[in-house]
Amino acid sequence: MVESQEIELQGHIIDSGIMTQLFDRVMDMGGNFEILVFDVGKKKTDTSYARLRVAASNKEKLHAILSELHRLGARPLEVRDVHLVPAEGDRIVPKGFYSTTNHQTRVKYEGGWIPVDAIEMDCTIVVNKPAKKAHCTPLSKLKKGDFVVVGEQGVNVSYPERPRESSTFEFMHGTVSPERPSETLIAKIAGEILEVRKQGGRIAIVGGPAIIHTGADKALAEIIHQGYIDVLFAGNALATHDIEYNLFGTSLGMDISTGKPVMGGHKHHLYAISEIMRAGSIRNAVEKGVIKGGIMYECVKKNIPFVLAGSIRDDGPLPDVITDVMAAQDAMREHIEGCSMVLMIATLLHSIAVGNCLPSNVKTVCVDINPSSLTKLMDRGSMQAIGIVSDAGTFLPLLAKQLEIQSCTAKK
Amino acid sequence: MVESQEIELQGHIIDSGIMTQLFDRVMDMGGNFEILVFDVGKKKTDTSYARLRVAASNKEKLHAILSELHRLGARPLEVRDVHLVPAEGDRIVPKGFYSTTNHQTRVKYEGGWIPVDAIEMDCTIVVNKPAKKAHCTPLSKLKKGDFVVVGEQGVNVSYPERPRESSTFEFMHGTVSPERPSETLIAKIAGEILEVRKQGGRIAIVGGPAIIHTGADKALAEIIHQGYIDVLFAGNALATHDIEYNLFGTSLGMDISTGKPVMGGHKHHLYAISEIMRAGSIRNAVEKGVIKGGIMYECVKKNIPFVLAGSIRDDGPLPDVITDVMAAQDAMREHIEGCSMVLMIATLLHSIAVGNCLPSNVKTVCVDINPSSLTKLMDRGSMQAIGIVSDAGTFLPLLAKQLEIQSCTAKK
Amino acid sequence: MVESQEIELQGHIIDSGIMTQLFDRVMDMGGNFEILVFDVGKKKTDTSYARLRVAASNKEKLHAILSELHRLGARPLEVRDVHLVPAEGDRIVPKGFYSTTNHQTRVKYEGGWIPVDAIEMDCTIVVNKPAKKAHCTPLSKLKKGDFVVVGEQGVNVSYPERPRESSTFEFMHGTVSPERPSETLIAKIAGEILEVRKQGGRIAIVGGPAIIHTGADKALAEIIHQGYIDVLFAGNALATHDIEYNLFGTSLGMDISTGKPVMGGHKHHLYAISEIMRAGSIRNAVEKGVIKGGIMYECVKKNIPFVLAGSIRDDGPLPDVITDVMAAQDAMREHIEGCSMVLMIATLLHSIAVGNCLPSNVKTVCVDINPSSLTKLMDRGSMQAIGIVSDAGTFLPLLAKQLEIQSCTAKK
Amino acid sequence: MVESQEIELQGHIIDSGIMTQLFDRVMDMGGNFEILVFDVGKKKTDTSYARLRVAASNKEKLHAILSELHRLGARPLEVRDVHLVPAEGDRIVPKGFYSTTNHQTRVKYEGGWIPVDAIEMDCTIVVNKPAKKAHCTPLSKLKKGDFVVVGEQGVNVSYPERPRESSTFEFMHGTVSPERPSETLIAKIAGEILEVRKQGGRIAIVGGPAIIHTGADKALAEIIHQGYIDVLFAGNALATHDIEYNLFGTSLGMDISTGKPVMGGHKHHLYAISEIMRAGSIRNAVEKGVIKGGIMYECVKKNIPFVLAGSIRDDGPLPDVITDVMAAQDAMREHIEGCSMVLMIATLLHSIAVGNCLPSNVKTVCVDINPSSLTKLMDRGSMQAIGIVSDAGTFLPLLAKQLEIQSCTAKK
Repeated sequence: MVESQEIELQGHIIDSGIMTQLFDRVMDMGGNFEILVFDVGKKKTDTSYARLRVAASNKEKLHAILSELHRLGARPLEVRDVHLVPAEGDRIVPKGFYSTTNHQTRVKYEGGWIPVDAIEMDCTIVVNKPAKKAHCTPLSKLKKGDFVVVGEQGVNVSYPERPRESSTFEFMHGTVSPERPSETLIAKIAGEILEVRKQGGRIAIVGGPAIIHTGADKALAEIIHQGYIDVLFAGNALATHDIEYNLFGTSLGMDISTGKPVMGGHKHHLYAISEIMRAGSIRNAVEKGVIKGGIMYECVKKNIPFVLAGSIRDDGPLPDVITDVMAAQDAMREHIEGCSMVLMIATLLHSIAVGNCLPSNVKTVCVDINPSSLTKLMDRGSMQAIGIVSDAGTFLPLLAKQLEIQSCTAKK
Repeated sequence: MVESQEIELQGHIIDSGIMTQLFDRVMDMGGNFEILVFDVGKKKTDTSYARLRVAASNKEKLHAILSELHRLGARPLEVRDVHLVPAEGDRIVPKGFYSTTNHQTRVKYEGGWIPVDAIEMDCTIVVNKPAKKAHCTPLSKLKKGDFVVVGEQGVNVSYPERPRESSTFEFMHGTVSPERPSETLIAKIAGEILEVRKQGGRIAIVGGPAIIHTGADKALAEIIHQGYIDVLFAGNALATHDIEYNLFGTSLGMDISTGKPVMGGHKHHLYAISEIMRAGSIRNAVEKGVIKGGIMYECVKKNIPFVLAGSIRDDGPLPDVITDVMAAQDAMREHIEGCSMVLMIATLLHSIAVGNCLPSNVKTVCVDINPSSLTKLMDRGSMQAIGIVSDAGTFLPLLAKQLEIQSCTAKK
Repeated sequence: MVESQEIELQGHIIDSGIMTQLFDRVMDMGGNFEILVFDVGKKKTDTSYARLRVAASNKEKLHAILSELHRLGARPLEVRDVHLVPAEGDRIVPKGFYSTTNHQTRVKYEGGWIPVDAIEMDCTIVVNKPAKKAHCTPLSKLKKGDFVVVGEQGVNVSYPERPRESSTFEFMHGTVSPERPSETLIAKIAGEILEVRKQGGRIAIVGGPAIIHTGADKALAEIIHQGYIDVLFAGNALATHDIEYNLFGTSLGMDISTGKPVMGGHKHHLYAISEIMRAGSIRNAVEKGVIKGGIMYECVKKNIPFVLAGSIRDDGPLPDVITDVMAAQDAMREHIEGCSMVLMIATLLHSIAVGNCLPSNVKTVCVDINPSSLTKLMDRGSMQAIGIVSDAGTFLPLLAKQLEIQSCTAKK
Repeated sequence: MVESQEIELQGHIIDSGIMTQLFDRVMDMGGNFEILVFDVGKKKTDTSYARLRVAASNKEKLHAILSELHRLGARPLEVRDVHLVPAEGDRIVPKGFYSTTNHQTRVKYEGGWIPVDAIEMDCTIVVNKPAKKAHCTPLSKLKKGDFVVVGEQGVNVSYPERPRESSTFEFMHGTVSPERPSETLIAKIAGEILEVRKQGGRIAIVGGPAIIHTGADKALAEIIHQGYIDVLFAGNALATHDIEYNLFGTSLGMDISTGKPVMGGHKHHLYAISEIMRAGSIRNAVEKGVIKGGIMYECVKKNIPFVLAGSIRDDGPLPDVITDVMAAQDAMREHIEGCSMVLMIATLLHSIAVGNCLPSNVKTVCVDINPSSLTKLMDRGSMQAIGIVSDAGTFLPLLAKQLEIQSCTAKK
């Protein structure tokens, strides 16, 4: 017997491709639909409205289809409160738990809508009943007794709308190719950074040690010095090689200015870590005058927070490195909140880690020499992501230059 | 004023290319040498002996050159005891500390030679004076007051000799190319595994989650079941997806047998972790009959130890994951000891972590779809490394097959 | 002033995503639309029908939008004859010429619809007036005086419909990832080959020299021997190394069975070419018993045509190589006609060349170790393309095996 | 019975690593050697001299070993005239023909030494008896009756010596890594270009269409305009897209300044070719004022020759394209002669074609986004090759800048 249900959607559902995804999803899953109402927005600023009857051959199929449509923002005509089930133990999800998207989400509780804080993908939603608050909760933070949302009932997703006026992030979205006009693209990214800044947005950077090896550290230090960065996410390697370079003029024992290995240079990174151990922390080392320049120096001087997350391949590590990865994740999440743009430069591990915690409305710029790394990063569900196949060593100096030029022009 | 010193070398110094590296190194560093004695081994089993006077324009240059030659196994004619300096604090190296190679090393202490335990690259050597023992000590384990070897005096490196009879590992050494006879190579590797086994050697495997995604998990489970593996190094992802597959038939929500995403499949990995949380550990889950097959199941059933190291991008993680990366490194080091072969399959992070801790005489087989990953792994200084550009999904089934065929033939 | 025009579409326009692409395109280009009629097919076999009024702020914009919609199969309500303009010289297109898609196309001429032969992308359409025939004509073949279609008037494109029942080609479409279940996928491709065969379809293979270097030549020779291939497209290198291997047991001087270079082996490919020169052609060499096995041998024995196209990096080349690339393109085009499936194995240059000449309804399977090569190939506009990141050396033997297993099963 | 022969070597045989390669080769091939004389050059400018007796278990083995040592420049104590055998037909090599290295080579003929002209790898040597001239002859040019050198007798190879003073090309030799100080390296390459220029050397460039797509065409046009390039090797694509850009502001239909596809842009490359067809040639089009800027324009204006070689994937092609690949090879060879530096930018096919024809003493700089492409190029046997993993779009502008800066500085 055919089962069916009516749903509705509202917003820039045509411009944003939501309507088309909805049609595709129903068909892909073997369902059918009938368009009951379809009011297309006539002007750019108008929103559209659609009401459909979705049908499938049985209840489970219909449920599965509605579950997918839900993630696109479709909702039943009448919405009831969320269904809450307590977690039976730490890190144990109730059966049928609602798994989050990375789009803005709200839940209906006691008749009212409450927003879900700190939304990120593949988490649970926990409702604090007395406070009437809902929090997006990763499995690692789920505690026994937490009230977890089960099923889609009462959950409403705001699938991100694609603005009509196209920005750099729209026309680039979803494509990764080395055959792109590099300088043009870098100029556009500089423009976006300045725009985010102008609107008071926060910008994070995630960076790998190749920034130092390719000699792009001076450019990044300058970008930080100029105040474009609000938080740095990295690992032990970036910080160690940055400090090694500023103490000894080498990166992994190689003289950056000549590209040659230096006598005894293979010991430099261990000496660098030792010096910071002696000082107690990177901040202390900067304040005592041990470190006199570089990326970490600028972070300390400008009071830019940094999260150095440990990894199993670390030497040392520096005293500032958070060796427990779950603690490092927490630190990362804390600083991600409120960011509206993230630059990911030449690091796959940390970029994926950060990317996993981002809401879909954060703009991301990913730069890597390896197109496969970019493909992985771009798959994370950000709606506004640019992937650039380039090396840090040429990208960052050109970006620093563009920021300088454009900010001067802007001031005039 | 020209400074000079006599050094000597002994062993298969020509076959192994040591003599030629020595010439090159002296020249590269601007020194000169005079060959005083050069007895070339006449027969395959004969060793050679060389005595040279190495000269440079000043003391520091000479010292730098001798320091490099030292790493190749060259030694002064007369050897004095090592110079020991106590560490002034935890993780703080003394100035001029000796940084290890990954070759077998011994130190002269109180007139006698003692071997350095657990040798690996880029560490310090700590001498336990009362016990007359020397231990290779990574920076992370260096404690205040440890007696650390400073300078090369009294340290003797056995640069690995290349055996005349070439094995698979010799002719493949150092090259990475997708244009190699794949089946031939896989057959040779199977042969090497059987040979290591016959000689009682231990074999470790380092694996990434692509093993599950590409459907190679059955082949790996079989290889473990057949007893070819002594320890597994992996992360949360491999174990989670293996368990997800065995509980739900999916890997990251995709049905491996059809390659299609499954309804609600995106929740499966969180359910899988929840189930293990409920059981308390992977071992418990196997023993309670929750997990009925797969890689982790075979490890538990065959009592093969596994080290699951945490990373900042982990979901969950499973209760068995060691979330502190330094603790995970320690666990890894403990199990690496005594291994004579390591298979590294489709994971860069864990392979580098393991590779960093290996002595140079351990045979390594690295398989990755990305030639750049292999290049990074092969650079780690193993003398006997094979890099194969292939995907886990075709490599492991062909390897399992070859092991079966060759072990049957061997038995007859 | 707003300009508008009515258009209509018919067919599986929702299942195939045509409707959604149409919406997107209008919006992207700054236009608007009003849905006049939208009859959604209720059952799987029903087609849908839509009539829309498309509007834009001026005539040029409207024209540009309609031009894009035309490529998706949209047509004005009333269709007039094509507009024909004679080419003013060889290889000189008339202004405003119609540039083809790779979808089935027909033109209205003297009131009737005539199909465009040999459709491929980015070509002109030339109408033979007396014969009332239309031919898709690449720039290289355009002759002075040819009547070339100008503008979209009278041209009708059948945008390929996506069948509801999904096949391997649908669920894989458009994605390239090394993290796929390899054996499952290979089994599916074998199934598709058998299916194409059963329905009387022709199958082409495009192959690079890595097939020989990786030792996959025996598998490919077997696949040809079993009659699965109707035409081979390759270059001088594949044929030379195949012949070298069958004459001397080496590929580029390397012994495939041991993987080692052979004494004097670097001369083998020149000897191989010399031998074929002496025989006069590959066919002669096979018939004289000079070549006794391999890919080229099987082609000759089974009377499978092959096109060996020259490239600027060729040694020799073999007498069978067509050194003029335009002549080679013609030969390729001739043999492509009527193919319904193409396997592209480990060659970018020849695969792109072949891919450029394919209509969109030909199924293509692309196998390469480099994901970037696949991405380039998949971008060529085929509707039914699978990209597999794998090496020829493991892929082809597993495919040959699957073909054997599945064809045996099918017979029972 | 053991067979043996004495050989000698002279020159910077230690600095250049020749001696060490010789030892390795003998050992690898199962032979033995005795050092009879070994005079090591004491000072940097001194050459060394060695005489060895090489032995093997039988005549064939000995012959094989000596054949390898020959390629390193080793020679028997007494040298007889070359052995010449006439080719029995076009493109048919005599048995045992001497296959060339890409190192400077001379042959002994009628008692005197004559140099081999136009040396390149994997060719034959043909001696013109009356003229007493020797010419390196690729298989494609070998004619019936040509006197071809057979065996190594009378052939002397000058294995390139590595100068003591290291240049950019030495320290970079043989390594390809994205983790290098990019700007430092680009500055060094600019320095080398200026140095080559100062010494009157000729510089060739080989370029792919990505130069246009990434927007680096302006930088390359400027580099040509400044007179740094003597010949351009490319294909139809680079020239077509350069011309398309200069006629229509697009590259493959994309507006370089905005990165967006342009309405009707997919026809632009066919229009561009049509325009050149109409003019008759690129030169005519420049002279008639059709083309007003860009890479091809600068070549014509500065009278820089260009070789556009056809490939099977070409659209059009332009009337200047040489569609017969063997004719294109000849044209390439003609212009390569006398070049002392080659820049290879973002094209694998043409770079390999050019690289195959280069003597080993030509400096090559290879730039590609794909490390695997570089590895293939670096394997071609050049002694002085730098591989840079970077994109054309950032590399060329930074190089043009450095050339400007350094040439200004040099003038002061």
